[in-house]
Amino acid sequence: MNKGQLLYEGKAKRLYTTEDTEILFVEYKDSATAFNGEKKAEIAGKGNLNNQITTLLFEKLQANGIESHFVKRLSANEQLVRKVEIIPIEVVTRNIAAGSLAKRLGLDEGTPLKRPIVEFYYKDDALGDPIITTEHIDVLNIATPIEVEQLYNAALHVNEVLRPIFTAVGVTLVDFKLEFGRDKDGNILLADEISPDTCRLWDSNTKQKLDKDVFRRDLGNLTEVYEIILQKLGGN
Amino acid sequence: MNKGQLLYEGKAKRLYTTEDTEILFVEYKDSATAFNGEKKAEIAGKGNLNNQITTLLFEKLQANGIESHFVKRLSANEQLVRKVEIIPIEVVTRNIAAGSLAKRLGLDEGTPLKRPIVEFYYKDDALGDPIITTEHIDVLNIATPIEVEQLYNAALHVNEVLRPIFTAVGVTLVDFKLEFGRDKDGNILLADEISPDTCRLWDSNTKQKLDKDVFRRDLGNLTEVYEIILQKLGGN
Repeated sequence: MNKGQLLYEGKAKRLYTTEDTEILFVEYKDSATAFNGEKKAEIAGKGNLNNQITTLLFEKLQANGIESHFVKRLSANEQLVRKVEIIPIEVVTRNIAAGSLAKRLGLDEGTPLKRPIVEFYYKDDALGDPIITTEHIDVLNIATPIEVEQLYNAALHVNEVLRPIFTAVGVTLVDFKLEFGRDKDGNILLADEISPDTCRLWDSNTKQKLDKDVFRRDLGNLTEVYEIILQKLGGN
Repeated sequence: MNKGQLLYEGKAKRLYTTEDTEILFVEYKDSATAFNGEKKAEIAGKGNLNNQITTLLFEKLQANGIESHFVKRLSANEQLVRKVEIIPIEVVTRNIAAGSLAKRLGLDEGTPLKRPIVEFYYKDDALGDPIITTEHIDVLNIATPIEVEQLYNAALHVNEVLRPIFTAVGVTLVDFKLEFGRDKDGNILLADEISPDTCRLWDSNTKQKLDKDVFRRDLGNLTEVYEIILQKLGGN
């Protein structure tokens, strides 16, 4: 399978066509961005790490019955995925208050929630990715009520699978962001990536942040903590 | 019924005890505030107008089977209400995109929504009254899921009653904010006020704003447009 034409360049990945119209070629970049692109840096090795971690996590989800767009990893920073039309909704699942939730509700970062919650954000850089409700999604016509229910249930299912996987290696899954797409038949498929760029992961004992907050908040060496996550998940 | 001790002073009203422990005395102030209190002014006559308009609207709701805390109007700027414990949720119902909804979703102000929507905001000045979802309400433990459903249904019911009342007098009910409280038996009761301070009301023909946006956006004389609303509703 060969890399064809550049289809789309996002903040962290480039997507290319392949000979197969239903398969895309993904190249993970070394770019780190935060605060809607206001903070940026190039961090050598980050693309490789996220490609490997995402691969491991999509494989673990698949082994637990959760399909995604992931097909296979090709090289250090490349993978093949099934082509989907991305739904412009970021689906955030939270087990512990942190980041914007802590700020919104006036909770201390680290406050456990009595149950996992799911939030939706409108994926629109110009609007600053605002939080939206199921009724906003309905009036925007960006997903049907049935699709929204599928996103909600899929997010909780991914949480149920990933949370114990992280717990078993001494990492707390604080929260994570998922994106979904529709395949050519309109089926909803988990897409994008699952990595320390899209999850909050804390060392369960020391509470050390092992995720992109290290970059957002200037807490140290990003690739060092991404390496820790990769190794804990059994990668190398 | 006499005015007793000052219990609470809000941005637009003062609440006092009365001889009856279940009844409070409300005094409408002439203060106008916007943007979480950042913009302030004293506008002579505003308190009287809101007291009269709220009285008319609560009476119309009552005639349509919707109970509220309202007991009776006593004087130009005073009324009696039943004592409730206010639930710290602002319940906003919207028929047309305006204000923060237009901004959040990137819609032009004036875009009709395909159906009325209900939003919840956490009534907390220090946090800036952020929008919250039903799941946030659940983890904050500020209302039970059954209460949230009651708030949601009550908001739509109020909309169904008020919208045609305004339409009949050439005014479009764009959106409005309600607050609710629990009485001593835990029953949910519509509370606070319903006035041009808490509704967006547009002249159906000219689209002239007949509400607090006149103050927020410096569009003219506030009491003149509140007078128009009062007269259209049959007050004097």
